Amino acid sequence: MTQLQALSKEELQSRLEELTKQYEDYQGENLNLNMSRGKPAPEQLDLSMEMLDLFDQHSTLHAENGIDLRNYGGLDGIPEAKQFFAQMLAVDTKEVIIGGNSSLTLMHDTISRAMFHGVAGGARPWKDEAKIKFLAPSPGYDRHFAICEHFGIELIVVEMQEDGPNMDEVEALVREDELIKGIWCVPKYSNPSGAIYSDEVVERLTNMETKADDFRIFWDDAYTVHHLSDEKIEVKNVLETAKAFGNSDRPYVFASTSKVTFPGSGVAAFAASEENIADAKKHMSVQTIGYDKINQLRHVRFFTDVISLEAHMEKHAAIIKPKFDLVYNTFREQLGNKGIASWSEPKGGYFISLDTPAGTATDIVQMAKEAGVTLTGAGATFPYGKDPEDKNIRIAPTFPTLKELEKALDVLCTCIELKSVEKLLS
Amino acid sequence: MTQLQALSKEELQSRLEELTKQYEDYQGENLNLNMSRGKPAPEQLDLSMEMLDLFDQHSTLHAENGIDLRNYGGLDGIPEAKQFFAQMLAVDTKEVIIGGNSSLTLMHDTISRAMFHGVAGGARPWKDEAKIKFLAPSPGYDRHFAICEHFGIELIVVEMQEDGPNMDEVEALVREDELIKGIWCVPKYSNPSGAIYSDEVVERLTNMETKADDFRIFWDDAYTVHHLSDEKIEVKNVLETAKAFGNSDRPYVFASTSKVTFPGSGVAAFAASEENIADAKKHMSVQTIGYDKINQLRHVRFFTDVISLEAHMEKHAAIIKPKFDLVYNTFREQLGNKGIASWSEPKGGYFISLDTPAGTATDIVQMAKEAGVTLTGAGATFPYGKDPEDKNIRIAPTFPTLKELEKALDVLCTCIELKSVEKLLS
Repeated sequence: MTQLQALSKEELQSRLEELTKQYEDYQGENLNLNMSRGKPAPEQLDLSMEMLDLFDQHSTLHAENGIDLRNYGGLDGIPEAKQFFAQMLAVDTKEVIIGGNSSLTLMHDTISRAMFHGVAGGARPWKDEAKIKFLAPSPGYDRHFAICEHFGIELIVVEMQEDGPNMDEVEALVREDELIKGIWCVPKYSNPSGAIYSDEVVERLTNMETKADDFRIFWDDAYTVHHLSDEKIEVKNVLETAKAFGNSDRPYVFASTSKVTFPGSGVAAFAASEENIADAKKHMSVQTIGYDKINQLRHVRFFTDVISLEAHMEKHAAIIKPKFDLVYNTFREQLGNKGIASWSEPKGGYFISLDTPAGTATDIVQMAKEAGVTLTGAGATFPYGKDPEDKNIRIAPTFPTLKELEKALDVLCTCIELKSVEKLLS
Repeated sequence: MTQLQALSKEELQSRLEELTKQYEDYQGENLNLNMSRGKPAPEQLDLSMEMLDLFDQHSTLHAENGIDLRNYGGLDGIPEAKQFFAQMLAVDTKEVIIGGNSSLTLMHDTISRAMFHGVAGGARPWKDEAKIKFLAPSPGYDRHFAICEHFGIELIVVEMQEDGPNMDEVEALVREDELIKGIWCVPKYSNPSGAIYSDEVVERLTNMETKADDFRIFWDDAYTVHHLSDEKIEVKNVLETAKAFGNSDRPYVFASTSKVTFPGSGVAAFAASEENIADAKKHMSVQTIGYDKINQLRHVRFFTDVISLEAHMEKHAAIIKPKFDLVYNTFREQLGNKGIASWSEPKGGYFISLDTPAGTATDIVQMAKEAGVTLTGAGATFPYGKDPEDKNIRIAPTFPTLKELEKALDVLCTCIELKSVEKLLS
């Protein structure tokens, strides 16, 4: 197939008719397919079912420090869980707090505390500043943006590149504006592009001069063990690097087992400098007596160490990699060389970032929906739901079966080409 | 034994010597006993161990609405859990949100949201008012007060009586001051006195005129099923009563299974008007995708209904009632008729409120500590940790064994009498 732009008006008209017919056929099929969220497939959840065999009424539920896990206490987590996450995130056990079931909650609560009480070493609560701002490398994760929007934090879009945010932009902004207090980062297999932060980006982020002396990097290491290729990518250790530059309090690191064991019944963790940890614990002690310690032990018994975790993640990859491959193959086959789409082919994580011609994404997502295929809302990958070029669509291929995914992709490709042809004809 | 006040100086001096000798003997025993927090005893936790047998790798973990509990979703809880808590709290399922493992967290987060965003129907966020205030019926629960202190909410002490707060005081305060936005209530088996709110108090609280039109009752129904006598006390339904008076948005109700199954691994719930529920969900959706649904199902499978819950709570009572009885018997025997102590004898809950002569509580708690018996800090039952009369001590008898408790009470009674004699001699 040639680039659509090379086609004559008549050829385009004829292609439009074919595509419209095809689209109407899909509509007739009454499809109900969903590629909107990064949800593991049921087969992935089956991988962790043996975790439910670990405890029964005869189990002794004591931590290695002797505390009865069934009772109150353990504000910052059981020692075993701290060791596990410290190993996973390559930090010291003193730099870790074990949370509840959700790293999103830890991020929300961290911002909530910063707004109301300020951060460790900060001069004042962020709410007492003039309207504060965060940098939002985009396309990015809608739930990050939603937290900021919820607290009235202004989001400034910076360009997301293959190796992280455009650091020239970032440095220029934070150097001048003391109201810029933070940046959102998904350093490995970024949502949605799969970008991997380079060593240089990690160094510049942790070393750059910031006008705000209480600037924080929100380092959402959501996909740190979620590899899709044999190459198990390592991103430079942000906490260590920040320490080396004398900015140890700058990074807040978040992770969880949501896409490792059971989303909703996993364990989340927060890693940061000891000063940040002490500050967080001071506030947390007002909010809770402790998170679910039995579930913490269940997880560390299931994964004895990071080696067994890696083996487990390979099983996840075996289930979802064929889905990613199906997306790439379908896109290449149906959209390749037509000059109407480009997409990322990430080495891990949960998403593919797809760009269609400017001004078409909203219409394409709507058309797909009307044919029974639900995608992440167009614009969701940008702050305030507004993609300035209206071209980015996030593809979440993990949840549907391969068969469902194949159909959903056929519908999507038809919608993309149809809209592109319409655009060329208009 | 006669009232100490009736003794001559010589008799007091001689009694002081006896008590001092006894205290020194206790010090020589190197005791390490703890009556500081309302923790269930290990035998109580054993009652719920069969909950861990309910699921294994072959279990089907779907809710009755078909959703896969292992995956993301279920922001406000699974239908079965809503039914269970709705039945327990005598509200409609539409008036319930199921939370994580802690009702304290639900209370904290509710106040945090009110501070930052205001409450449903409120004119503005509470943080944008002049310094707001809460009423704190005292003695009361230190963790309630701590939340307010954390958010800079001023606490106004009101007198706690046997049937709830002194309503004349409460009504007079809230009628005049629009900055009073809330009141803390533990309506049944109150912490620490065991007070039970009368119908009249519930009616006056829900019907009273408040200058603030966004006034809220924080109704911590922590001990709603935690009876210690055969008489299973019912407190008038606060949500229903508020509705009848046209103030349906006034109560926020909190409860959990922390002292029913496993503290830290239980399930918490929030009940309120549908408008309040909708408001809470709007904010929660930014904080979490959903709480632990597997643990919710584990609980509703363990307790099929409120009847089986009641049977379970009777087993708890059988374990802890002898401990409460030991406290009463020891106090009667060692402190009775001496004119130096009075205490509550609650029909449920986790605490006994003990009053010693004015100005002695801090010293008594310190003396007990120096003899190896840790009590709740003196003053903890009042806002800012300051008991104006320095006389209230909270007794938490559930965690120690009967043998440990017996020794701890002997030490405590010695300290009380010793300090009282010293006071009379000074």
